[in-house]
Amino acid sequence: MSLDHYPRGILVPALTPFHSDLSVDEERFVAHCQWLLDEGANGLAVFGTTSEANSLSISERKALLERLIDSGISPRMLMPGTGCCALPDTVALTRHAVERNCFGVLMLPPFYYKGVTDDGIYASIAEVIQRVADSRLRIYLYHIPPMAGVGFSLALVDRLLKAFPGVVVGLKDSSGDWKNTQALLQTFPGFEVFPGSETYLLEALRMGSAGCISATANVNVAPMRKLIEVWKTPAADAMQQELTAIRAVIQKFPMVAANKAILAELQAAPDWSVVRPPLRSLAVDAREQLFASLERLHFVTRHPVTAA
Amino acid sequence: MSLDHYPRGILVPALTPFHSDLSVDEERFVAHCQWLLDEGANGLAVFGTTSEANSLSISERKALLERLIDSGISPRMLMPGTGCCALPDTVALTRHAVERNCFGVLMLPPFYYKGVTDDGIYASIAEVIQRVADSRLRIYLYHIPPMAGVGFSLALVDRLLKAFPGVVVGLKDSSGDWKNTQALLQTFPGFEVFPGSETYLLEALRMGSAGCISATANVNVAPMRKLIEVWKTPAADAMQQELTAIRAVIQKFPMVAANKAILAELQAAPDWSVVRPPLRSLAVDAREQLFASLERLHFVTRHPVTAA
Repeated sequence: MSLDHYPRGILVPALTPFHSDLSVDEERFVAHCQWLLDEGANGLAVFGTTSEANSLSISERKALLERLIDSGISPRMLMPGTGCCALPDTVALTRHAVERNCFGVLMLPPFYYKGVTDDGIYASIAEVIQRVADSRLRIYLYHIPPMAGVGFSLALVDRLLKAFPGVVVGLKDSSGDWKNTQALLQTFPGFEVFPGSETYLLEALRMGSAGCISATANVNVAPMRKLIEVWKTPAADAMQQELTAIRAVIQKFPMVAANKAILAELQAAPDWSVVRPPLRSLAVDAREQLFASLERLHFVTRHPVTAA
Repeated sequence: MSLDHYPRGILVPALTPFHSDLSVDEERFVAHCQWLLDEGANGLAVFGTTSEANSLSISERKALLERLIDSGISPRMLMPGTGCCALPDTVALTRHAVERNCFGVLMLPPFYYKGVTDDGIYASIAEVIQRVADSRLRIYLYHIPPMAGVGFSLALVDRLLKAFPGVVVGLKDSSGDWKNTQALLQTFPGFEVFPGSETYLLEALRMGSAGCISATANVNVAPMRKLIEVWKTPAADAMQQELTAIRAVIQKFPMVAANKAILAELQAAPDWSVVRPPLRSLAVDAREQLFASLERLHFVTRHPVTAA
């Protein structure tokens, strides 16, 4: 915990665009990822919750990652999500990411069974590490109990860190519980902890956080990156307040649909609003509320997005 | 709702056996399924929660179904689980089951995202039906909110029944909420409702239930089948009490591990106790408690199981 650390920064859980027939729009995905990096993203946590990754098949995920890397985006900027319910799937995706030289993977615990023990989740992660058997593997644990229904307790993190030093290297905390993020930062100095929201970004940075991985970075990454650059200066608090205000507006709506609605509007690309079921696009009235609130914050016009 | 109906009966959510290296033991699986049918199972709801289906890859599930049918078990006895998080996976498994002539499929809603709307789940099921596009398709909805975190409300069932008559034909209710099962039976006469436990089997049959789909049928199917045969006779209540007592003992323990522990013991086949993480095998003390309780009910010696 040091005020001198340079955080890893803002990793964007990039949205996955679909065509109106629900097939993946690979071209728009690559353009979106490239735009995020141009805007200042420090990296891309592709295939997370915001990416609807669990609504994609394993082969779709592999193909998309290939396409991204083949397009010229460095795998050293990529932290793909690879945690699935089934061990063989998690192993396959993790191995693929490591072989393609991604800097890390973001690993959900197996999330179908609820009420499982720390021991069971430990065994899952340990088995993946043993099977992938590659010294390049760097795992970021994905703690998101509101969706997964299971997660990584402090005791489990401790056990994993001791068993796999240099392999289990960080955690995305999407618990929505700032106390948990604080506890992680305090308990495990040097462990790369990313809050799942920019709301506590500055506070987290001051406690030694690695940055953040936030859904709304899909539409607002530039000012987040700016905060990363100046977080030790007096300007930081006002910038944090602006970020918090925008986040507060967007998170009143379903996150994936809201972020996609914003991109659809800004790029005049209606297909951006397509989500795979069980998610639904924003209804017209919700969209209007969202845009009215954002306009009041002078948000929409401030961040024009190049069409894909 | 009629006392004259002949229920579809006891469908067993067959356990999936693994080797000690966690690979699927296909041979033991086939032997187990054959034994269940020999014991009186009216059908097999393979690839459910008890089967650890979500811990299997799509290709493992397809291969196992192929193996089962190739072994000579009629697909008309099979209701494989096919509901996954990702639409392409659900479509692939459902199409495969229909093409192999299975009498039905048991469909989980997409279960990663929580707090989704009925409309989103409706869209998921509708999309699968449209894509499979096969008049042979018969869907049984799999309602298990304690695991899936999402489920099929009465309003959603009503909507699906009206939109897809003859396609959406039944539901397995593993809510653990007998009031919900009653409401389903009362609201949708003719709809094939299977409680997810034998505890309420007799009561459900008297309300027009199709039978039940219960984890413990893996080790206790014969007396369940007997109840199906005699449920209209005075002997039925005493038989139900015996079933309920055995169920009550086993469900004090994690269901998959407990059922596997029983088969491991009865068949002197230690590998039967292997589960894939995040599940764990029963600890020694739990196993001893389980067997002590079952012996008090004269259970273990009553149902010897032929070794696979």
